[in-house]
Amino acid sequence: MDDYQSILDEIYTELSPRFGEGHVATYIPELAKIEPQKFGMAVITADGRLFQVGRADEPFSIQSISKLFTLTMVMGEPALWQRTGREPSGNAFNSLVQLEYENGIPRNPFINAGALVVTDLILSKHGNAKEVVLNFVRRISGQSDISFNFTVAASEESVGFRNKAMAYFLKSFGNIKGDVEVVLDAYFHHCSIEMSCVQLAKAGLFLVNHGKSPYWSVPILNARETKYINSLMLTCGTYDAVGDFAYQVGLPAKSGVGGGILAVMPDQFAVCVWSPGLNDVGNSLLGTQVLSLFTTKTGMSIF
Amino acid sequence: MDDYQSILDEIYTELSPRFGEGHVATYIPELAKIEPQKFGMAVITADGRLFQVGRADEPFSIQSISKLFTLTMVMGEPALWQRTGREPSGNAFNSLVQLEYENGIPRNPFINAGALVVTDLILSKHGNAKEVVLNFVRRISGQSDISFNFTVAASEESVGFRNKAMAYFLKSFGNIKGDVEVVLDAYFHHCSIEMSCVQLAKAGLFLVNHGKSPYWSVPILNARETKYINSLMLTCGTYDAVGDFAYQVGLPAKSGVGGGILAVMPDQFAVCVWSPGLNDVGNSLLGTQVLSLFTTKTGMSIF
Amino acid sequence: MDDYQSILDEIYTELSPRFGEGHVATYIPELAKIEPQKFGMAVITADGRLFQVGRADEPFSIQSISKLFTLTMVMGEPALWQRTGREPSGNAFNSLVQLEYENGIPRNPFINAGALVVTDLILSKHGNAKEVVLNFVRRISGQSDISFNFTVAASEESVGFRNKAMAYFLKSFGNIKGDVEVVLDAYFHHCSIEMSCVQLAKAGLFLVNHGKSPYWSVPILNARETKYINSLMLTCGTYDAVGDFAYQVGLPAKSGVGGGILAVMPDQFAVCVWSPGLNDVGNSLLGTQVLSLFTTKTGMSIF
Amino acid sequence: MDDYQSILDEIYTELSPRFGEGHVATYIPELAKIEPQKFGMAVITADGRLFQVGRADEPFSIQSISKLFTLTMVMGEPALWQRTGREPSGNAFNSLVQLEYENGIPRNPFINAGALVVTDLILSKHGNAKEVVLNFVRRISGQSDISFNFTVAASEESVGFRNKAMAYFLKSFGNIKGDVEVVLDAYFHHCSIEMSCVQLAKAGLFLVNHGKSPYWSVPILNARETKYINSLMLTCGTYDAVGDFAYQVGLPAKSGVGGGILAVMPDQFAVCVWSPGLNDVGNSLLGTQVLSLFTTKTGMSIF
Repeated sequence: MDDYQSILDEIYTELSPRFGEGHVATYIPELAKIEPQKFGMAVITADGRLFQVGRADEPFSIQSISKLFTLTMVMGEPALWQRTGREPSGNAFNSLVQLEYENGIPRNPFINAGALVVTDLILSKHGNAKEVVLNFVRRISGQSDISFNFTVAASEESVGFRNKAMAYFLKSFGNIKGDVEVVLDAYFHHCSIEMSCVQLAKAGLFLVNHGKSPYWSVPILNARETKYINSLMLTCGTYDAVGDFAYQVGLPAKSGVGGGILAVMPDQFAVCVWSPGLNDVGNSLLGTQVLSLFTTKTGMSIF
Repeated sequence: MDDYQSILDEIYTELSPRFGEGHVATYIPELAKIEPQKFGMAVITADGRLFQVGRADEPFSIQSISKLFTLTMVMGEPALWQRTGREPSGNAFNSLVQLEYENGIPRNPFINAGALVVTDLILSKHGNAKEVVLNFVRRISGQSDISFNFTVAASEESVGFRNKAMAYFLKSFGNIKGDVEVVLDAYFHHCSIEMSCVQLAKAGLFLVNHGKSPYWSVPILNARETKYINSLMLTCGTYDAVGDFAYQVGLPAKSGVGGGILAVMPDQFAVCVWSPGLNDVGNSLLGTQVLSLFTTKTGMSIF
Repeated sequence: MDDYQSILDEIYTELSPRFGEGHVATYIPELAKIEPQKFGMAVITADGRLFQVGRADEPFSIQSISKLFTLTMVMGEPALWQRTGREPSGNAFNSLVQLEYENGIPRNPFINAGALVVTDLILSKHGNAKEVVLNFVRRISGQSDISFNFTVAASEESVGFRNKAMAYFLKSFGNIKGDVEVVLDAYFHHCSIEMSCVQLAKAGLFLVNHGKSPYWSVPILNARETKYINSLMLTCGTYDAVGDFAYQVGLPAKSGVGGGILAVMPDQFAVCVWSPGLNDVGNSLLGTQVLSLFTTKTGMSIF
Repeated sequence: MDDYQSILDEIYTELSPRFGEGHVATYIPELAKIEPQKFGMAVITADGRLFQVGRADEPFSIQSISKLFTLTMVMGEPALWQRTGREPSGNAFNSLVQLEYENGIPRNPFINAGALVVTDLILSKHGNAKEVVLNFVRRISGQSDISFNFTVAASEESVGFRNKAMAYFLKSFGNIKGDVEVVLDAYFHHCSIEMSCVQLAKAGLFLVNHGKSPYWSVPILNARETKYINSLMLTCGTYDAVGDFAYQVGLPAKSGVGGGILAVMPDQFAVCVWSPGLNDVGNSLLGTQVLSLFTTKTGMSIF
């Protein structure tokens, strides 16, 4: 019987002297205010046992982890793989260079450009792209109290010129159908969603269980689509460090500049770690190391 | 005594069977309506003698030729050469790639990104960037009836997503200080200005005469600044074809996608030709050939 | 008890009408002569049971699959990860662009530039980089009759100008220490090694068994290094299609332009398929589809 | 009557405190030995009057100025403009990036890649590409004592890996027809030619006089071709600083990393300056400033 609690406790003790390492994202004024020493971690097993340590119940800004949820919502859309690729970019997550060379087709749905296209798909399908996404996240995690942080969304919107540039660039290639400002507004709100490690681990459980969430009666994805999402997380989920992350951690994962990383081991567990200090490529510095320790100590890895 | 009239007449006769060659710019709906067969040409000498042929008095959309006038207005600004380079781009006029690699500093003031920065400089200095530009163009050409074409400006604004992307990209690098939408609005209006070949040739006369316009008492530029503008036209004035244009024509020039090209021979003449059909890089196809013929027939070239 | 034989037979029957699809690599004259209809497949389980179908015993040119073996030979070298990255390239396998932007450090050891650096590491360590590699491949597969095809090596050498360019480019950045021509000669010989599907599956068995080969008493890698290789195959092993390959197949794999693909499922099996027709990115067209079918039918995937 | 002597003397006095500024090219071991304080300048008028100051008779390594002479030799070759463009590169002179994006067609004959193609054209035409070039340079300058510096050529060859990479890259695109090593050997020898400021100014005189050299009975180029060369020097002759150079100096010119710059004013004069210290883009630092001073003081500029 897996006792992840003792491993979480061990990791916490080992890492606590280093809490605060890395650089908190400062380009979004509101996010720059976070205390870098914060740390939380939660593991939930396929059969629902929950283990946690540190501030695992404190909500934080999920940022790009939201891209995992919006992608999940459009997995069945026929146009999806015409309008975005599924290859790692070999470039920064917010580069416009590749987009120009590849005529407005983002490399994958986890870079900003791809997530904007996904948001546009949601907008076309549902008529709005804000509430539907929040409701979806609430439902798959069984947590009704998850919300947008409107202050963070506004803060990001006020300085998000590069994302604006990217959205208009996509529009110039015809790869945004809706109104650019509406798409951007929804996108910034997705990034502003606040969830705790426990909530994110719960939300990731459908990726462990072949598409089924214990919190929702209808399957979220079928088994094949679930494998697809997991493979995309592995090859594209951690910015321009997917090779290194797969090498160090060996689990499909999606990270965000809020310092969170959600990873899954199919059939076994979902794990979420939060530490706001980032490394050079934008993944949580300690978060990456904690997950590496975790897979080493548990012997769990997909490889 | 130079008799340019007979040369203009010769050229007109030679070229008239080919009027309509090339492709009219279609990305701006309003511009796509122009009749491709139109053709006009005007030469004005340093001492004010005027020669013309064809529809030399019919106003057309000056488009990027406006970049010559806006640059002239900011030649004395100390920040100018910190915020834009003065090298040919080796790339399409509307590429975002180089802008990313070079951290938001446009290669020169004649590509779109550079002209947006120039427009922003005008906005900072004058508080508006529309009327001051129109007034400037009226004054240096001595023509009070030059106007914006608001339909063209609106048409361009409605589809100008790539320019929007570029402006927000510049803003993300801090290289637009003012409001992006205000800058863009001004920029689209500059491009929509309508002038005839005769008016453009007159407007270019200060570049022939070391900075002095016969239509305005105060020198527009000093002799050194005038040389600078001429050198910039030669190395950056005709999109990604400056080498070929210098090779074929041998005169400093600025072209626009409306089909106009304004060229100058220092101490001798300004010449403007208009033919709406463009070649692959966006310069007037016949316009380029006409100017090549003109410099061959007159033996006039800076080389 | 897994009966892979019936699945192999099923796949063979299903796919046989399509044998010959794709385009045989023609840039190497000697390889262009291969019959495109050839097809073979072999599976070997962790405990040594062998299943095969088609021409699974016919040797073919392993080409880039050799990069897996040369990388394995240098996994313990301290300089390895200073001299090559471990990120997917987001580019063609033989692009020089990224190499210039990233100052001569190849993105990973599975693109040509990275494999040239690996070959140079082997040369520095062993004093030669040809026989040691061949001997290593013989040993880990327990097959003493594996050889270079000198005609193919010479054929590749005679037209391998782009690889030459790449090697001299690496040298210009100081990232080749040895003689460029010696490194290239070794590299072309590695690519020319001929092995059958059965031999390749056997050679891959150490990646299934945490670094241990049944054919060699000493562990080839430790468990951690073995995980590293598997993760690198997943993120970088199939040219600029790793995302799609992970999505369709879901196994770590290394492909070659000879039409072979070697894939592994840790703790379960190694599988090798051979079909010379390639898809647009250079992976075996049917090979990729066969492996996708195989993981679907067996329910085996790391995701 | 132009008295350039007093201007040269003035410039020498003004600049002498700064002799030695800039950075001598160090990537070629033999060139790194040069004393940075050396300075020479020569002007020769269209009608043959010679003015000089400093070490104007001391031979130095002409390096890329040789590209001007090799281009002149192939101006009439029909394949020339199929195999190289004539646009500024907007990139470093030895970049391989653009060459890959533009499928092996160099942007112009003055970047290294273009000069390698030109050398290959000479090789195809004359059967050798070394002596014919040296003889040509001797003839157009009327100086029989000009020679290769074999030590410099060997020094460059021993470290010229990037040029080797480029030549093999061109070969991989089919844009080198001859043997790559023969082309490179010739190229390195061209760069090693040693000439003084006086000799270079004399060699440039045909560009002042519509293609006619006073030292050779047959016209070197016709008037039209001469204009072409001059325009190419202006748009492509000074590395990735042509815009700035045209702006500061206003003359067609070709520079070399040996610290020489040869410039011409059509119908007026050829001028050569030599100061080994380079600026960031690889042009002589003082050389550029001296020419700027010279055109300011003489009022001579093509603009």
